[in-house]
Amino acid sequence: MIRLPEEEHPNKAFGWAARDSSGVLSPFNFSRRATGEKDVAFKVLYCGICHSDLHMVKNEWGSSVYPLVPGHEVVGEVTEVGNKVQNFKVGDRVGVGCMVGSCRSCDSCKDNLENYCPKMILTYGSKNYDGTITYGGYSDTMVADEHFIVRIPDNLPLDAAAPLLCAGITVYSPLRYYGLDKPGLHIGVVGLGGLGHVAVKFAKAMGIKVTVISTSPNKKKEALENLGADSFLVSRDQDQLQGANGTLDGIIDTVSAQHPVLPLLALLKSNGKLVLVGAPEKPLELHAFPLLQGRKLVGGSMIGGIKETQEMIDFAARHNVKPDIEVVAMEYVNTAMERLLKADVKYRFVIDTGKTLKATS
Amino acid sequence: MIRLPEEEHPNKAFGWAARDSSGVLSPFNFSRRATGEKDVAFKVLYCGICHSDLHMVKNEWGSSVYPLVPGHEVVGEVTEVGNKVQNFKVGDRVGVGCMVGSCRSCDSCKDNLENYCPKMILTYGSKNYDGTITYGGYSDTMVADEHFIVRIPDNLPLDAAAPLLCAGITVYSPLRYYGLDKPGLHIGVVGLGGLGHVAVKFAKAMGIKVTVISTSPNKKKEALENLGADSFLVSRDQDQLQGANGTLDGIIDTVSAQHPVLPLLALLKSNGKLVLVGAPEKPLELHAFPLLQGRKLVGGSMIGGIKETQEMIDFAARHNVKPDIEVVAMEYVNTAMERLLKADVKYRFVIDTGKTLKATS
Repeated sequence: MIRLPEEEHPNKAFGWAARDSSGVLSPFNFSRRATGEKDVAFKVLYCGICHSDLHMVKNEWGSSVYPLVPGHEVVGEVTEVGNKVQNFKVGDRVGVGCMVGSCRSCDSCKDNLENYCPKMILTYGSKNYDGTITYGGYSDTMVADEHFIVRIPDNLPLDAAAPLLCAGITVYSPLRYYGLDKPGLHIGVVGLGGLGHVAVKFAKAMGIKVTVISTSPNKKKEALENLGADSFLVSRDQDQLQGANGTLDGIIDTVSAQHPVLPLLALLKSNGKLVLVGAPEKPLELHAFPLLQGRKLVGGSMIGGIKETQEMIDFAARHNVKPDIEVVAMEYVNTAMERLLKADVKYRFVIDTGKTLKATS
Repeated sequence: MIRLPEEEHPNKAFGWAARDSSGVLSPFNFSRRATGEKDVAFKVLYCGICHSDLHMVKNEWGSSVYPLVPGHEVVGEVTEVGNKVQNFKVGDRVGVGCMVGSCRSCDSCKDNLENYCPKMILTYGSKNYDGTITYGGYSDTMVADEHFIVRIPDNLPLDAAAPLLCAGITVYSPLRYYGLDKPGLHIGVVGLGGLGHVAVKFAKAMGIKVTVISTSPNKKKEALENLGADSFLVSRDQDQLQGANGTLDGIIDTVSAQHPVLPLLALLKSNGKLVLVGAPEKPLELHAFPLLQGRKLVGGSMIGGIKETQEMIDFAARHNVKPDIEVVAMEYVNTAMERLLKADVKYRFVIDTGKTLKATS
């Protein structure tokens, strides 16, 4: 736990912050930088609660800096633009995802993969260009270089759009990169939470057959009837799994708890791809033989670049891909966090900051 | 250990076989099927000794059937062809690699990937269509459906061509499949044995920069001067490895002993690919974070299909890629096996069956 002196920037801001590793959030006055010539400032209307916010407020990854204002699924309406901003104007519907900066000159950045830039600046709890710490979207305003601003199409409701900026791109990008986006393919989605349920929706919108693989048999009805999955496997049922061996072209594995990958590799056809988007802390056990015998692979993917995030949002708008959300008031955030820890949400909390965040000073 | 009654086929054959899990090879009279209408029969002139032969003669994978005639890097000259054979004639220089049959109708077979067919028939120790056990190339003759026969171009010496049929295709196929075959890329080759040294040669012929990664510092001179590698890393030297972090587009890992993959993942650039072609028996420890953070992957590959094997042999002939071999007499095979166990060979033993295999009956 590191405490930094709070910075004084020109623009007053207000949000909710965790003050220590208890993770409890409470009202917090802070400030944001003046809108620079390439910056877009916006009023935050909604912000999704991502599972990583839970890790961060409790310093479970050891990198948290307090006070910590979480939130990297941030949407709202533009209030001010710098004089060199080219693509946005006051009133536009916009969003910011997991990052607000990168070096813009490394191979990853040149390849529109700012998400893999070693100097990527996270939307909160990260060191900004000027050395100050970034604050996230559980707040009333946001400011970022226009390069990191995503446009939200008019037909996409802002509240449902918020989770796309992290959960959405996290599953969309690997579907594209690993070639699991071709109509007629059959993929598995492991875990039916914030990420998993969006993965099902994107895959179905791409014309892909989807099997949900979950530890909870009671998610079957929901998966098939509400989310449109084609089939459902209970991951602890060995017979059920074995009956499906060799049937999947790929798997998006959203689970960050420790879990066996050998049965997942068995579900893959030859040339099948198991893609991890959740990161268990301890190493997984990887058996080499199944990889060799079917030329299978285990890959990873982490969010996506800005260009692809815009593409994902546009795709979602075009194909009516909308996360299932529960909109909550700012004051409810600590309860929401507790419920999220118990996976008691279908499937993403979104804070209505626009209507419920009341400044105290 | 299973012992089967020896089959009686029309054509007498002679080779050396292991009789039990001592793995000791001795002269063995057996028989081969009559040359069928789509079959090509050939006199075996050379046969490479693959490390897997060592595992098989000792039943280390638990699947060996005795008497066991090893050998799946088999080259020679055609002596007879069936009347429906289209592509070969008596006198042609040909070879057989790891397989002599497959279902020819599954997705893998249709995709020219017979090597991933669930019904693939291995060149030795496997059950043939007629239920008999296949015998390998440590013998005087070979017969196989022409589909599984590879043509050896005239300018490729037969003895040096032999190891290409297993070692060669094992490393060539993943270089192609995983896109590590583009001039200007930089790859690592882990392990400098039968597979590794051919991987270096193929990669160099493709215009790729190659770093050899080995536990043995004394292989450096050899790797750089004789094999043409561009650089060399001692895998136990943490400082050396760390200095090379983030520099490789891919790695061909030929090591089948247990070894850590985390330092190898660190050597990769973003989007880098670690390809296993050796199969450690125990599971490897796979950390998810490095996969996610750089969109890296760990994949496998196992030999290659027949079409690609022919392509590989033609590529080798065109680019003068020749394994470094030590040609030995049939009588030397048990000594060769002992030396192979100690990695005391540069880099592949090839048995001169043509000149040194003397029938005893």
